[in-house]
Amino acid sequence: MDNRITILDTTLRDGTQGEGVSLTVEDKLKIAKRLDMLGISFIEGGWPGSNHKDAEFFIRARELNLQQARITAFGSTRRKNIPAEHDANLRQLLDIRVGTAAIFGKSWDFQVQTAIQTTLFENLNMIEDTVRFLKRSGIGVIYDAEHFFDGYKSNRAYAMSTIRKAYEAGADWVVLCDTNGGTLPHEIAAIVASVKEQLDCPLGIHAHNDCELAVANTIAAVMAGAAQVQGTINGYGERCGNANLISVIPNLQLKLGLPVITAEQLAGLTSTARYVSEIANMHMPVNQPFAGHAAFAHKGGVHVSAILRDSSTYEHIAPGLVGNRQRVLVSELSGQSNLVFKAQELGLELEANDPNTKILIERVKELEHQGYQFDGADASLELLIRSVHGNLEEILTLESFKITVVKSVDQAILSEAVVKVKVHGESVYNAAEGNGPINALDNALRKCLMQHYPSLQTMHLSDYKVRVLDDKDGTATKVRVLIEFSDREETWSTVGVSENIIEASWQALCDSIRYALLDVKPALNKRAEGAKEAVGLVNH
Amino acid sequence: MDNRITILDTTLRDGTQGEGVSLTVEDKLKIAKRLDMLGISFIEGGWPGSNHKDAEFFIRARELNLQQARITAFGSTRRKNIPAEHDANLRQLLDIRVGTAAIFGKSWDFQVQTAIQTTLFENLNMIEDTVRFLKRSGIGVIYDAEHFFDGYKSNRAYAMSTIRKAYEAGADWVVLCDTNGGTLPHEIAAIVASVKEQLDCPLGIHAHNDCELAVANTIAAVMAGAAQVQGTINGYGERCGNANLISVIPNLQLKLGLPVITAEQLAGLTSTARYVSEIANMHMPVNQPFAGHAAFAHKGGVHVSAILRDSSTYEHIAPGLVGNRQRVLVSELSGQSNLVFKAQELGLELEANDPNTKILIERVKELEHQGYQFDGADASLELLIRSVHGNLEEILTLESFKITVVKSVDQAILSEAVVKVKVHGESVYNAAEGNGPINALDNALRKCLMQHYPSLQTMHLSDYKVRVLDDKDGTATKVRVLIEFSDREETWSTVGVSENIIEASWQALCDSIRYALLDVKPALNKRAEGAKEAVGLVNH
Repeated sequence: MDNRITILDTTLRDGTQGEGVSLTVEDKLKIAKRLDMLGISFIEGGWPGSNHKDAEFFIRARELNLQQARITAFGSTRRKNIPAEHDANLRQLLDIRVGTAAIFGKSWDFQVQTAIQTTLFENLNMIEDTVRFLKRSGIGVIYDAEHFFDGYKSNRAYAMSTIRKAYEAGADWVVLCDTNGGTLPHEIAAIVASVKEQLDCPLGIHAHNDCELAVANTIAAVMAGAAQVQGTINGYGERCGNANLISVIPNLQLKLGLPVITAEQLAGLTSTARYVSEIANMHMPVNQPFAGHAAFAHKGGVHVSAILRDSSTYEHIAPGLVGNRQRVLVSELSGQSNLVFKAQELGLELEANDPNTKILIERVKELEHQGYQFDGADASLELLIRSVHGNLEEILTLESFKITVVKSVDQAILSEAVVKVKVHGESVYNAAEGNGPINALDNALRKCLMQHYPSLQTMHLSDYKVRVLDDKDGTATKVRVLIEFSDREETWSTVGVSENIIEASWQALCDSIRYALLDVKPALNKRAEGAKEAVGLVNH
Repeated sequence: MDNRITILDTTLRDGTQGEGVSLTVEDKLKIAKRLDMLGISFIEGGWPGSNHKDAEFFIRARELNLQQARITAFGSTRRKNIPAEHDANLRQLLDIRVGTAAIFGKSWDFQVQTAIQTTLFENLNMIEDTVRFLKRSGIGVIYDAEHFFDGYKSNRAYAMSTIRKAYEAGADWVVLCDTNGGTLPHEIAAIVASVKEQLDCPLGIHAHNDCELAVANTIAAVMAGAAQVQGTINGYGERCGNANLISVIPNLQLKLGLPVITAEQLAGLTSTARYVSEIANMHMPVNQPFAGHAAFAHKGGVHVSAILRDSSTYEHIAPGLVGNRQRVLVSELSGQSNLVFKAQELGLELEANDPNTKILIERVKELEHQGYQFDGADASLELLIRSVHGNLEEILTLESFKITVVKSVDQAILSEAVVKVKVHGESVYNAAEGNGPINALDNALRKCLMQHYPSLQTMHLSDYKVRVLDDKDGTATKVRVLIEFSDREETWSTVGVSENIIEASWQALCDSIRYALLDVKPALNKRAEGAKEAVGLVNH
């Protein structure tokens, strides 16, 4: 057995128990793909017994073609006083044909008597029967010992007997849970070490952040012998959340030198954190360790002058190791390498000394200052890079639009948009209805373009998100709109920022269409294609 | 010497080095008063040598009449190669007549040579001269050993010699700083214990959160012998922030049993955290440990049915100890028990057998199926419960609205709303402009109500979120809008769902205003108040 640490991500299950976190099946599938890319071993997708949405996820997840991650279903030990094979929730685990199940059971005598109101003896039977039933059915079992640390402090012998039962019944992993998040690192260290002495089995740790100690508790458990870590991206989860894998992983790998994921995967850590926060539409604190925008941002004057001499004076790791970057909040030094890297990703050569590169960096910084964010809007960034660098022809320019939304009591709401744009220099005027103002705008705009670009018919808006950027002036503050479009082959995201939600949406909408037209020949002339060849763009 | 832990709060100094944190002198004075009430011993108010604002704070702070806290100024050791009495920054400390100074100096050989570019010997002189100069001038000295842990790992003998110099020169405290936040708890524990053996002096700890370990590092240091803790409210600070005192204090007091502040002061912890976040205009994460709105919020159905039997099943401490409270979130993960509990929280009796309860549960389920989400929309849920149960009078009904948004190239976008509503049965018609369609709607709607309810002027929109609910049908899919309003005392959230973003926003907007009016007497008649009394509502 090597010293590799196995990660179980429960963003899709425990993560959704956090206030404000709500994920559609589509969201969950996207996140699962991303977790697989990050190198996660087990993805706990939900509790199929508890709701239909979770059951649907497991069925659709089979088609994800994951590289290494194993989709895992969450479930409970059987109900008291019935055989495991009659338990509807356990039967459902079989129905959805999942390969691994994470089964939680009680370890704390107080919980057995208070929460599920049965005998200590029956609880042991529940654990044993459940694990045996699943293992006999060919399902791998991760046994989550709920409230283990509280249970161990209350009745050590009983807590031990529950996990011994699970392991003897065939559980592949025994995971010790600090369900209430109230345990301190030195207690975690002592109890895990003591368990390790008493029961020789693969141990895991599941920590909650109620004392702001989930990451520390996780590290303490690993140092005491736990080889599986459970947590969530950005620490989402019930109450104060779960152990934040975005902090746990680099701590284990870079500080303790334990292998967890590859160096390339680790360099995707920041973008994964931001991607999941966008999908979940959860605000990411700027000061989030490792992945936050301010995690390597220097503001103090003493700090800034020192990092100019040597970054390690005020940085505990090189930001690039986790895919983040240094920022200097009062100077103009940041970002170049990041943009060069990004351009390479898009197949565009960007020389660091090229004056256009400097113009581009200034432009990106200025837009970020205004509230634009390109982490979740690659297509807008690509347009920006191309426009600064390649004299990208503007096929589309706005002349005017007018939106009307009318609602009377008990009548359906009506949304109409009138759009006047120039397409290849020629004015086009059109109107359309829609299910809302943005949909009406989208319909009217595409009507203007459809003659030249019939292929636009295949693209459709697949996500739309709005966020207020600061709350100083009420409704009059800026909003950021992120729009995602998809066609049969590709998905792309764009961003718009304005005090006016319609204007921000318009910007993002136009970017989406400009991006869609990058690879398309107009039906009536070749101008767009010609322009594209002239600037040496690489198709993607 | 008793085992009381001394707290130094540096929200007003290191806290303001966090991105987005900016405090006026007035803000700082307000926060200082509040910190004193909380029982903080030292309030580090700023760096008078670095800017005028900080110098002004120290002058005005003399009139604060604090109960126990000592205002402390931050500063550096003297510049290299000059006498301490010629150092302008040190002279300023004398000029502002502060009683205590926190002076930082270098402990790390690498930093001495790279950042301040002097000899190891001169650095020792700088420390000695500075401490002696201040002590001779009657100023108490807290010596902050910057980068101590990195220094200790790099050159143990030199790091020790720096703090020995400070202590021998008369420093009252020696504070070991993990300036880059890269040290792990087991390293902190070992190094503090080792320092304690080598130098018998009052030790403190100053931790940063770059590894999400600042709270754990602080606890580890205290357990190893540190008696002073430095940190900030809500963990504000450079890069990822400082040790969060809102978590450190209850951990030390409730978990380790160390006296820090009184029980009454501890019960003011949550309100202090929220007060400071308001003053600093920083969004407070709902899941912040101890003080967050969701710190004791239960969403999973299993959790909720258990806490109804006994709160300690899923709560590590009684929320009231830190001035927070238990909440139950109503979501698709939850069952009937959540709703019954929620109603109790609102002061409404909801019997499980009552037919109205069944109607309510069906209604909530139906709305959730349509895409409503109540775990982030307490106010909408309260209106729903009241309307099913209490014949809540509808003060406000819609007759019609019309929104127009017009944009021409290079002209500012114009948004206008015309609203016709019934207020207490009387038609009111009004129009307003706004920075966007929602702002225009809000303005027009409030104009309609302002005559009867002038108090609505104080409420303002503090957050606005939109998300698409599923992406099967492009822009024509449903959107969910979450709106948060605040007034001087309270914050409340509402939800709206529709295929049309304007209609969804309208619903959430109306709910916000209906909720705001629950406690308000109309200026012209008493009808709303009468209705409220009729259904036996409890003011909140």
